[in-house]
Amino acid sequence: MLSENDRLAALIRQRLAAKGILAINLVSSPGSGKTRLLERTLGALRDTLEMAMIAGDVQTENDADRLRKAGGRMVRAIVTGGACHLDASMITRALDEIDLDGVDVLFIENVGNLVCPAGYDLGEDLKLVLISTTEGDDKPLKYPAMFRKSSVMILNKVDLLGTSEFDRETVKANALRINGHLKIFEVSCARGDGLDEWYRWLADAVRAKQNLARS
Amino acid sequence: MLSENDRLAALIRQRLAAKGILAINLVSSPGSGKTRLLERTLGALRDTLEMAMIAGDVQTENDADRLRKAGGRMVRAIVTGGACHLDASMITRALDEIDLDGVDVLFIENVGNLVCPAGYDLGEDLKLVLISTTEGDDKPLKYPAMFRKSSVMILNKVDLLGTSEFDRETVKANALRINGHLKIFEVSCARGDGLDEWYRWLADAVRAKQNLARS
Repeated sequence: MLSENDRLAALIRQRLAAKGILAINLVSSPGSGKTRLLERTLGALRDTLEMAMIAGDVQTENDADRLRKAGGRMVRAIVTGGACHLDASMITRALDEIDLDGVDVLFIENVGNLVCPAGYDLGEDLKLVLISTTEGDDKPLKYPAMFRKSSVMILNKVDLLGTSEFDRETVKANALRINGHLKIFEVSCARGDGLDEWYRWLADAVRAKQNLARS
Repeated sequence: MLSENDRLAALIRQRLAAKGILAINLVSSPGSGKTRLLERTLGALRDTLEMAMIAGDVQTENDADRLRKAGGRMVRAIVTGGACHLDASMITRALDEIDLDGVDVLFIENVGNLVCPAGYDLGEDLKLVLISTTEGDDKPLKYPAMFRKSSVMILNKVDLLGTSEFDRETVKANALRINGHLKIFEVSCARGDGLDEWYRWLADAVRAKQNLARS
């Protein structure tokens, strides 16, 4: 089953590469702030980047609705109907409903689940794992597959540091122990800290992907 | 595969019923506070209730170690090695290593995952779902299976209310919309709010289970 998934993921990757579209698969526990990060990113960059979004959820379209309200022009919901992760066949069908011409970046918001989505390639360029300061600083050790397979980690809710025993240096050390190549951002999607650095990194990554498509 | 799981779960249920042991399956997202609730409960009740604990985790024994440090006398770790949930065969093997004579209550701390553990009966009397005030008040609607299958919901981290848009009345209304029979506790495992009510309910439930075994 996984190899059929990998075959479809490779086709998605080719399809997006041909158009120079950067694809980011957002993964995290429920409530870490995936949707909030995308709302913020839409608010800040929707005049400079053309963003398509696929919001995966078990039962509702709440996240897709939030993204549309935040100004998302190309938002597709995937309701998995109980399944604990998105797979490449779901993404293939969703992409058929999106006009990809002119799109700079495709965000895929996975089901809130720090375990199962690690096993499914969706044809993305990279996985971005979110973790919030209210979750416990040993999470990278407890859910290592997700941190090993991600290229970027966003530590969200830094405005709540100090309200629990969570230590930002410990979580970063734990994450880098699992994956020394992780690019780490520390942000508060509520208050705004650190988001400018994320926006700059995203714009650079979009440009790099487009240059790759032209080369 | 589920029916083999159900067969094993029924055997576990018989085995625990014969000894009048209450079994509670704790489920939640990573970082909602399952281990913290058990640490607190051990600290408060370890002289009055004999508690056995099974701590399930994907890769580490961090949670089991914490429970032992908090005074747990009968703690078994299950490392699933990647699997996203506990199943009844894992519990069967763990119970073989616990001396169940004199045990009042068995806590099974599931893998941090709000999706997959909903589908696996572990032979418990009830599922207890934790949700924390930092996760978003629409979670019962987004992950309805878990809230539908649980009998008790603990809203944790009420000390952090007011630091985000999370609304306690909204989350309770959403939870009760999914499952009108949910018994709800509102607690802070960090500060102590609401825990006495949980301890009283637990002691009553233990007594009821023992009376059932004698009748």
